Amino acid sequence: MKNFPIAKSRRLRSTPYTDRIERQGVSSYTVYNHMLLPASFVSAEVDYHHLKEFVQVWDVAAERQVEISGKDSAQLVQLMTCRDLSKSKVGKCYYAPIIDGQGNLVNDPIINKLAEDRWWLSIADSDVIFFAKGLASGNKFDVDIKEPDVNILAVQGPLSDQLMSKVFGEKICQLKFFNFDYFEFKGVKHFIARSGWSKQGGFEIYVENAEAGKDLYDYLFEAGLEFNVKPGCPNLIERIEGALLSYGNDFDNRDNPFEANFEKYTNLDSEVEFLGKERLKKIRNQGVTRKLMGVKIDHNQIDMYCEKTLFDDDNNIVGFVRSATYSPTFKKVIGIAMINKPYWNSKNSFKIEINEKIHLGNICDLPFI
Amino acid sequence: MKNFPIAKSRRLRSTPYTDRIERQGVSSYTVYNHMLLPASFVSAEVDYHHLKEFVQVWDVAAERQVEISGKDSAQLVQLMTCRDLSKSKVGKCYYAPIIDGQGNLVNDPIINKLAEDRWWLSIADSDVIFFAKGLASGNKFDVDIKEPDVNILAVQGPLSDQLMSKVFGEKICQLKFFNFDYFEFKGVKHFIARSGWSKQGGFEIYVENAEAGKDLYDYLFEAGLEFNVKPGCPNLIERIEGALLSYGNDFDNRDNPFEANFEKYTNLDSEVEFLGKERLKKIRNQGVTRKLMGVKIDHNQIDMYCEKTLFDDDNNIVGFVRSATYSPTFKKVIGIAMINKPYWNSKNSFKIEINEKIHLGNICDLPFI
Repeated sequence: MKNFPIAKSRRLRSTPYTDRIERQGVSSYTVYNHMLLPASFVSAEVDYHHLKEFVQVWDVAAERQVEISGKDSAQLVQLMTCRDLSKSKVGKCYYAPIIDGQGNLVNDPIINKLAEDRWWLSIADSDVIFFAKGLASGNKFDVDIKEPDVNILAVQGPLSDQLMSKVFGEKICQLKFFNFDYFEFKGVKHFIARSGWSKQGGFEIYVENAEAGKDLYDYLFEAGLEFNVKPGCPNLIERIEGALLSYGNDFDNRDNPFEANFEKYTNLDSEVEFLGKERLKKIRNQGVTRKLMGVKIDHNQIDMYCEKTLFDDDNNIVGFVRSATYSPTFKKVIGIAMINKPYWNSKNSFKIEINEKIHLGNICDLPFI
Repeated sequence: MKNFPIAKSRRLRSTPYTDRIERQGVSSYTVYNHMLLPASFVSAEVDYHHLKEFVQVWDVAAERQVEISGKDSAQLVQLMTCRDLSKSKVGKCYYAPIIDGQGNLVNDPIINKLAEDRWWLSIADSDVIFFAKGLASGNKFDVDIKEPDVNILAVQGPLSDQLMSKVFGEKICQLKFFNFDYFEFKGVKHFIARSGWSKQGGFEIYVENAEAGKDLYDYLFEAGLEFNVKPGCPNLIERIEGALLSYGNDFDNRDNPFEANFEKYTNLDSEVEFLGKERLKKIRNQGVTRKLMGVKIDHNQIDMYCEKTLFDDDNNIVGFVRSATYSPTFKKVIGIAMINKPYWNSKNSFKIEINEKIHLGNICDLPFI
């Protein structure tokens, strides 16, 4: 695969940590929410093995926040998601699909409830702020909507608790999964959640003061020496093995939550009002004709620029791979694919063309690990 | 400046022409509307000189369309822009700032009126589709909103008319600036506008059939041999010299249309209803305290990752440069900057730090050429 440099500009925003990760050897970028997001350091595979054994600090400032506050904020936030938030509690994080009026997906943020009338939607790669502003204007809601200057540092990996308790004190180990609280470092309080875009455990530090954040960044590496800390980033191999879905890769605004396996977060029998509810009830009753599943391909390499078609022996379309990578664990290519209903049986095989050669593969359930 | 490769994925969508521009030597990419947009071929400077003398074909598929159709489509489109569209005509293109309820900018598309009840917003880099969907839901408008699979090819440069008339016939030369019509190539009708993101003249071909588009792409290079056609892309030097503004670079959702010099398109005394109208009237009455102006800096190089601060002799803030480049025409760095009111006099000078050295510059009016 030929490499193409990214042409930097203000439009592809740097983060407060960009200088630091460039000194530390970031080797590629992606763009996420109009911001630079590191995509690899040594290599996806070397980063992967390190992430599964030690601890990493990630510049994930590109996970931007949409802050919705004011009298009607709870009503607006609920209107945007099919997850029932009526019993939601301050201090908790909710993974919640955002849905449009047609019942299609707009984003899959973590919604942090800061107060009964103040919410942060920690978003994937689409401009949720304009969806919220459009809905607020149209419904004449009394809300304030903005993108606060929050630049997340994630600490991920099996040694995260050791590093974080060394920096913030033992109490942080009691923080439960998808809960957040405030912890102090050098006199500055940081909003910290037990969450993150890996399945290796860890925390996300929602840095509101960029200068304090840079200081904290440096200290995490100093304190982390004994735990073999390294810079890292959301890892393609690890996230596909764990089936952590990516908006724009695995699903997008042409897909509904049932096709993306979000049944658990689609509370159609709740009392709450949200966009697309009636449409989604119809879809549930009819049943979907395609859904996201795993694929394993007998090959050791794949480049994904756009979705790739899967065929059966009679050249009928089985589905489309949307994300894929070589997995050192399975010693083959694994991927996330939108599979047509006749092929949902996990024993089905298919053909796929990679670099002008035909390879064989099998459907499987998600996650891989 | 160190180069960082872009990590490709389905989320950063390729275009139907990506294979072709990579074979032709694209040398860097940016990301625009979640899609790959070429940023240079030989180099910004070599591309610039060629663009001003000959003709180029550009893959600008990243200029995505938001299609708004249906009974209430005209009402929704008008609600989104401060430009009075009440006298708009089918077959014409309208440069029109999109404004939120707070009177701030969301995007600056060209709005193409396809029919009284069908519009294409040819957008800059933000998800206008979700703003439109939010407004439509909130206002219960009877509209259909989608992103059609349109992949624009631009033909730009002083020899554009010669190349285009060779391919589409003489009649295309009669097309007026910011008008569109349909023209045939090999039995396929293409929507073509006299428009484009350069001041060198040219056309934009809104390709709706990707296969026909690839065929047309190849033929443009075949037919263009005699005009010294080359592949190209929106050129940083040419667009700054001509003050073609870029959403996300020169202005964003923290700026209002008066600060971005959009007075001409801000029709507050019209009868039409649009978002932020009352707010914008207040801003007009109070007057703005900063606005976009040009800057010239006595230096031969600048890298822009984020805005850079300008200071006066007493170290007061003069403003912030948002886009800048070395201009071979002016033999210095030129840029677009948000300048504070006390410094609007175009004779004002300032200091700026570039790579840890102080350089001097002057405020000037836009455009440069």
